Amino acid sequence: MSFDRLIKKIIETGNPTVVGLDPKLDYVPNFIKEKAFEEKGAELKGAASAIYRFNKAIIDEICDIVPAIKPQSAYYEMYGWQGVKTLYKTIQYAKSKGMFVIVDGKRNDIGATMEAYTNAYLGGAEVNGVRLEGFGADALTVNGYLGTDGIAPLTKVCSEDDKGIFVLVKTSNKSSGELQDRLLAEGGTVYNAMGDMCEKWGEGTIGEYGYSAVGAVVGATYPEQLAEMRAKLPHTFFLVPGYGAQGGGAEGVSKAFDERGLGAIVNSSRAVMCAYQKEGCDEKDFAKAARREVIRMRDDIASFIPALKK
Amino acid sequence: MSFDRLIKKIIETGNPTVVGLDPKLDYVPNFIKEKAFEEKGAELKGAASAIYRFNKAIIDEICDIVPAIKPQSAYYEMYGWQGVKTLYKTIQYAKSKGMFVIVDGKRNDIGATMEAYTNAYLGGAEVNGVRLEGFGADALTVNGYLGTDGIAPLTKVCSEDDKGIFVLVKTSNKSSGELQDRLLAEGGTVYNAMGDMCEKWGEGTIGEYGYSAVGAVVGATYPEQLAEMRAKLPHTFFLVPGYGAQGGGAEGVSKAFDERGLGAIVNSSRAVMCAYQKEGCDEKDFAKAARREVIRMRDDIASFIPALKK
Repeated sequence: MSFDRLIKKIIETGNPTVVGLDPKLDYVPNFIKEKAFEEKGAELKGAASAIYRFNKAIIDEICDIVPAIKPQSAYYEMYGWQGVKTLYKTIQYAKSKGMFVIVDGKRNDIGATMEAYTNAYLGGAEVNGVRLEGFGADALTVNGYLGTDGIAPLTKVCSEDDKGIFVLVKTSNKSSGELQDRLLAEGGTVYNAMGDMCEKWGEGTIGEYGYSAVGAVVGATYPEQLAEMRAKLPHTFFLVPGYGAQGGGAEGVSKAFDERGLGAIVNSSRAVMCAYQKEGCDEKDFAKAARREVIRMRDDIASFIPALKK
Repeated sequence: MSFDRLIKKIIETGNPTVVGLDPKLDYVPNFIKEKAFEEKGAELKGAASAIYRFNKAIIDEICDIVPAIKPQSAYYEMYGWQGVKTLYKTIQYAKSKGMFVIVDGKRNDIGATMEAYTNAYLGGAEVNGVRLEGFGADALTVNGYLGTDGIAPLTKVCSEDDKGIFVLVKTSNKSSGELQDRLLAEGGTVYNAMGDMCEKWGEGTIGEYGYSAVGAVVGATYPEQLAEMRAKLPHTFFLVPGYGAQGGGAEGVSKAFDERGLGAIVNSSRAVMCAYQKEGCDEKDFAKAARREVIRMRDDIASFIPALKK
């Protein structure tokens, strides 16, 4: 019915960040790859197995201090259905550890097809009269270019099952402005229009912290737009990518939060997964290095948000 | 390097249509479901198996008269990784029968993540120094909301591997205008801007028929916009959904074609998959009913395109 479950986890951990699990095989320590290839073959199955071992170790190490993970679907699909099986197992494992799981799939379609995506990630598919979860995540990123027809099937499930969606509004990449920043004849930009649609789509799903089940993706690399959107979209919870590796700093990111220190969750992927490479520590220490980076990031961001300062 | 392979198949079969394989379990005849559930269990595995048997029989029946299939990814993901395995098997089977395969995934992301999607569907992932195909399709539908960063990784692979992409421009659904029809301050609409970007992204990939590797999705339900886009985007090949079940007629669809009868491929999904239900024939006759519908559709559309009339 809202992002209340996620917000509660954020308050509980005192940490408004999410770890992106976007596991390119290059990020996985050699000792894991070697073992996985030896046991499962140096093919897609072995790659998928290596990634699962990597994810699992990171989840074990961070689940007590991070509220959520955000697996990026592309990095699993890249290894075929075997990789997608690892996505499923990763989601289930993180949930078993009490984490909130946001699948970053940026899915979009209309009507019955969007219902199918909803069933896949947030609901369940009916097979022989029984409803079975395909992936069983808590939230999904979506692209709103197709309008309400692409969002309505999701908000229906979000209402019934206490799940949420994040709609792309202003993305973190360099070329995001090519379409998103164009000025509309009616005033405002394309991303403003998309943001307003998020507020509208979220009506009727507002939870106890004042945020709806329809969140927005707003990149850390555009702090001015973050501040503008925070002011304009009071009921829209933000997922903020682009901190760290993409160049977004903690001060800029702080604009995404309200005066209570709520209203947003900041993602970091590569900096956490590859912390061991950056630190130059033993690769066997990769999960502990990930934990150290998570703590550094949490404290860095909190230092710019008065309500979160210890 | 272009859509030349697809265009050659269209010319060879004299049929500018593609069959969408969006197999909800409800569409699958009972005798197939019963057998699959008996052999594999009435769970996701059984559902995925039923869908594969259904797809395979339809492909066998239409592969000599239809140039391409378009599996819609959502309907496979709905049945978890087991469903995604069926997507893979369906792609491979259709290719073995000489068909061109367009995965309708509407994928979108940036940089390394878009590369991962590209590797998944059109290229290959490197595992232990060897490049392995995740799904091995010929084309992928994508959403261009993120700008060039989301398209460049694809066009690179399209150039190297003779594959193509279709970017959503003006979609067939009722609410497509909520964002896509908004007027820009610079003139034109959001979908006009997206269409122009397709022409630009396609530069350098134009093949022997004058079309690039960057196609556009333009819905059959908006014939005026189809005609407008055909005139404005001379190098952009169109994928036209919305014929039949969604209400787009053959006369409207004909606006998507150039004077040679080229430049577009029209999709039909439910009307073909469920032809046996509409006909009211024995469900065991479902694949032959699909073939009859494919022929009816081909002739219906050709009757409005002078260059294709027999």
